[in-house]
Order: sequence, then C-alpha cells, then structure tokens
Amino acid sequence: MTELEQRRRAVQTALTGDKPTNKADALLVSSPANVRYLTGYAGSNGLVLVTPSETHFFTDPRYALEASQNITCKLHIAKGPLSEAVSSVVKRKKLKKIGFEPAWLNLEQHQKLKHLLPLGYSLLPLPGVVENLRMTKSPAEIDQIRKSVRVNSEAYARTLGRVRLGMRERDIAAELDYQMRLHGAEKAAFDTIVAAGARTALPHAQPTSKRLEENDLLLIDMGACLDGYMSDMTRMAFLGTPTKRVQALYGAVLEAQMAAIQVVRPGVTAARVDAAAREVLKKHGLDRQFVHSTGHGLGLEIHEGPRIGKKDQTKLRAGMAITIEPGAYIDGLGGVRIEDTVLVTASGREVLTPTTKEFVHL
Amino acid sequence: MTELEQRRRAVQTALTGDKPTNKADALLVSSPANVRYLTGYAGSNGLVLVTPSETHFFTDPRYALEASQNITCKLHIAKGPLSEAVSSVVKRKKLKKIGFEPAWLNLEQHQKLKHLLPLGYSLLPLPGVVENLRMTKSPAEIDQIRKSVRVNSEAYARTLGRVRLGMRERDIAAELDYQMRLHGAEKAAFDTIVAAGARTALPHAQPTSKRLEENDLLLIDMGACLDGYMSDMTRMAFLGTPTKRVQALYGAVLEAQMAAIQVVRPGVTAARVDAAAREVLKKHGLDRQFVHSTGHGLGLEIHEGPRIGKKDQTKLRAGMAITIEPGAYIDGLGGVRIEDTVLVTASGREVLTPTTKEFVHL
Repeated sequence: MTELEQRRRAVQTALTGDKPTNKADALLVSSPANVRYLTGYAGSNGLVLVTPSETHFFTDPRYALEASQNITCKLHIAKGPLSEAVSSVVKRKKLKKIGFEPAWLNLEQHQKLKHLLPLGYSLLPLPGVVENLRMTKSPAEIDQIRKSVRVNSEAYARTLGRVRLGMRERDIAAELDYQMRLHGAEKAAFDTIVAAGARTALPHAQPTSKRLEENDLLLIDMGACLDGYMSDMTRMAFLGTPTKRVQALYGAVLEAQMAAIQVVRPGVTAARVDAAAREVLKKHGLDRQFVHSTGHGLGLEIHEGPRIGKKDQTKLRAGMAITIEPGAYIDGLGGVRIEDTVLVTASGREVLTPTTKEFVHL
Repeated sequence: MTELEQRRRAVQTALTGDKPTNKADALLVSSPANVRYLTGYAGSNGLVLVTPSETHFFTDPRYALEASQNITCKLHIAKGPLSEAVSSVVKRKKLKKIGFEPAWLNLEQHQKLKHLLPLGYSLLPLPGVVENLRMTKSPAEIDQIRKSVRVNSEAYARTLGRVRLGMRERDIAAELDYQMRLHGAEKAAFDTIVAAGARTALPHAQPTSKRLEENDLLLIDMGACLDGYMSDMTRMAFLGTPTKRVQALYGAVLEAQMAAIQVVRPGVTAARVDAAAREVLKKHGLDRQFVHSTGHGLGLEIHEGPRIGKKDQTKLRAGMAITIEPGAYIDGLGGVRIEDTVLVTASGREVLTPTTKEFVHL
C-alpha cells in the first residue's frame, strides 16, 4: 500500500471508528493541504470525497492531463462547479450524511452544497479529521521537512554573507527568496520577514525600503516550501557592536528558546513548552514583551497543529514537527526572536535547524 | 476626505441605501483584501466592522504598533480572538443585524460568532458589498496597477534576455521572481508559471526541473504584486524555429486575444468579451482546446470580479482592470496562451501591458 493509500485508509478508519462524533457516510475534504495530503494534487481547484470504501477526487479540465497521470483514486473532471460533481456522486452512492471541514468551507459553499442535496441528506461538521493525522509526520515527510530546513538555512547563509550597510530590507528579502529557489525550494513558505533597527519591534514586519545602518538590529524570519513541505527559522544579527541592553535582550530570548526546546518530548503538553519559554522571559522582566505564542506545528502548511501556546493541551507525540520561537519586542529599542524547526522524537527532540544561534555581528 | 474614508463612506451608503437586501446595522468585513481596501492594513489578522456612522478595525497585539501609527478609524487591539472583541462592540452599540461576507467566513467562524451574540441578534449574509466597490478602480489604484504591470514586464524582459537552452523551468521562475522584487514588487502575484515543451499543454503547470531543449515552446505566466496591486501577463517563446502547426496555433490564439480586446468597452458584458475570443478559436477548430475563461478582474487580488467567462453578464465599466488571456492546449504538441492586463476606459480600453506579442524565437 502506498503512503497516499495509507492516509486515505486512515481517514476511512476515522469515519467508521468508535468515535461516534465522526460517524458519517463520507468526508468532503476541501482544505487544499488536506487534499494534497490525500492525493498528491497541489493545484488550486480540487476536492476529495472519502467514503468508507472509496476515495473520489474532483478537479476541473485545466488539470485533466496532470490528474490523469498522477491521481491514484477515482478521478472526476468536472466542467461545471466541483460541488455539483460531488453532489452527483453523493446521490448516486446514497451517502446521506456528509461530513465536511468547517474551517475550510465558507458559508457560500456550504449553502450551495446544501441546496444541491435532496431531502434526507445532511451536512455534518467534522473538524480536524485529516489535520489530526497530519500532525504526526511519516518518515518520508520528516525527510521532506529536513530538506526544506536545509535549503532554508543554506539560503540564509549565502545571503548573510552578502549583507552590507546600506542594503534595503526588501533587497535582502529578495535575495533570501532567490537563494531558496536556486537551492531547490519552489517558493518561500510565507512572506519573508526582514526588519532592521527599531522595525524589529514589529513581530510581523513586512520588508520596506529602509536601509541598514550602523548599530541596527537585523531580524530575518524565513521558511522554504520544498515539495510542499515547510521550514521556519528566525535569526538575528547586529550591524556593529550591540549595547549591553541589546545583548541582554538577545541573551534572555535565547535562554527562553533553549529552555522551551529542552522541555520538548513525547507526552508533554504544548502549553507546558510555551510556559517554559514564558517563565524565562518573566525572570528577565520581559514576559509582557512576548506578545505571541512560542510556536506552531508545520508540514504541508506553515501553521498547523499543535499550537505551542498557553491554552493548547495537546500532548506532544514523536513525529510532530514544530517551531520554537519566543521573542521580546521593545518599542523604540527593537525586538529579538529566535526560532528553530524542531522534531519531536521518541527520546525527546531533535533541532533540525543547523544554523548557529550565536548573535552574529556584521 | 481621504480615499480610505471615501471607501468606508461608500460601504455605509450601501448599508443604508435603497437596496433592501443590504439593510443591516453593520457589515463585518473578513476578506483580507477588503480589510486592506478599507483600512490599508495588510497583515494576516484583521477584521473591520462598518456601521452607518463608524468604522472599527480589530487586530492582535503583534500589529499594535503599526496599527496605532497607520489606522485612521477606531482601533481595537484584542488579546483574545478577534470575534470576541467584535461581539463586544456589537453588543455595546446594539447592532442587532450584522451583515457578513459569506465567501470569507467559514462555518467554524460563523458558529463561533453566532454563539457570542445574545438572543435577538442575527447574522445576515451580504455577499460582495466591498467587492462591488473594488471592481471600479480609482485613479490612484489605476496608477498602482500600471506600476505593477511595468515592473512585471521589466522583470520578464530582463529574464528573457538570459534564457538559454539547458535552463530548468524552475530556474527561470526563480529569476523572474527575483527580478520582480529587485524592481520594486513585494512578491509575485501568484506562483509564477514556467512551462516548456509538451508541458505547455498544462494550463496551470508548476515549474519543474525540466530543462529547455531545442524546439521547445516556452510559456511564461507571471504577475507582480506591488504595494498590494496585481498585474498578470502570459507570453510565449520558442527555442528554435517553430513548425507551421505551432505557428498556426500561436496565430490563432493571438487573433482570439486581439479580437477579445477589441470588444472591451463600457457597457459590453463580460460574457460578450469571452465570446469574441471563443468565436475566433472556433473558426480555427480550437474551441474545445480552450478550457478556461477568457480572463478576470484584478486589483488587490489576482482574481476578482468581473469574471470574463461565458456566464458573467456584468457590464464593463470604465475603471475596471481585467485580463484577456485565451489559450489553446493540445496534448502532445503543447499549449499557447497570450495574456495582457487591460484597463476599461471611457472610450474603450487601454492595454496596459507593454511587452510585445510577437512570437519570440530564442
């Protein structure tokens, strides 16, 4: 059985298993990442319908040729809206209770589908069925994430060697993305963040035309998307010699990041990992400057479960890939964030990101 | 009044106007492009609530600093979920009937919001209120699109000059995106398509490691995103001297593209423009090889209204920005698509894309 078939089988098991909330005659999968996970299809217009015994894939004629070569489940090329093609399979197979993904179906699509179904047919929200499977990565997926991480770090290293005073944030971002691509990524995992000087205090800064100046902090948050799999890393550099205050800020965030990594192992809750980072920053009087979560799962999406945040009670399992990225942001002075991609292993954790966490002075 | 204020005023007018279907005490705007259109906010976590007299913007603490500097309506920094912050404003202001965007609220968000509202409050789907305004571009927006188109064509020209036999599709795509960025784009408007040889028959090919060979068709479909505004262009080249059959295919698609452009003027339906392209391809026996629509509107999103397709009866208006991009795809031989970004003007149309439509032989 191929890995795709195993995944589809796992969805079928979820539909027919003991968990009564999941009982449905089929699951309609509309999340693009979930569609890709179950079929390999990476285009922009695909739906999957999993029944206890079959998997159906729907796309439009633009993808007919690719799909006929690559799709290994039942293939439907729909000339009209995909929802109509789905509903005719649903009716033909008398699948009366259709589970759907409430985070991936908007009100418009839901209404449309409801109108296409005859009386006696119903739609049932079944959140997270495929996402739950995706949280634990297979060995093949872990290899993909490793490759993505390596390419990302390589692109960072090549670009950092070219960073000079006077360069604009946006030029650095362009170079990072270009290097990623040259080393095999199909694209950046998200809009690359390059922030310099006081702009580092913006946790989600978009690169601007600001030029690097003497005594600027430099924050780079970047990830690669390679064969669909994501990586994520944040590193800091300094243009010149940082003041003691900036060095202390860097030291505190690094200590928090390392502390959170140390806690990662199977059985520990995501919230406990978040707390480990938060406690260190509190000790340094920086907890109120840490305005986001400690991290997130990643894989076919840049943000997936678990959320490494205050409230997530998910227990870590071997095979989960997560980020650990605490930060502290001080208006006027600047911000520091340090982030690795980390794999949960049977014996604890493996930091996949090979890039040094030394505070680089350029 | 600033342009942002004018846009918010226009939404308020839509809410209080004669169209009874739009009657609501507020509109909750959740589409990221619509949020940007009304507030300038370009981050990933923002909501807007427009009432007949006020506009409220909601985001999280990561964006607090940027928002406090840039947002010109009422600003709410929410520590928890934005929907909770929205619902407290809704209750405080007694906004009993809340319009929402059904294409931009998923079932999960809708359920959550519904549970937060007291009895007597209701949610009403109000599709397309902001999208309708966005279809007609202001002079400032047209300037942005012009800039985006220019940068895109410049990146194409610089890259084409470097295309050589043996290059991989993915290397060309990386170079195109890099050039775009160097010339001012913040990113590509969509995943750049580079397809060579028989792969040109895949209308939505993702660039692969295929290398350019003698006698390959080369299809490049690319767009820039510049200050949030999109451009879109497709051009063809040939590595060597095309056969008569390939030349005829190119000629037919070019004729269809020019015919569709000629039809563009205020008052003409989108469907009529689509038909103009389709008729030419039919004359050449290629109508069944034209498997998509003739084009689409573009602006803050790469695909917006109107859809230049068989069924869209929207009448074109001056200020609309659309693509005209017929294609014909022949399995085994390859495909040809030619695409410009076109502005509807009072007197007809202006093709914004400056790049030649000659069939370039490399």
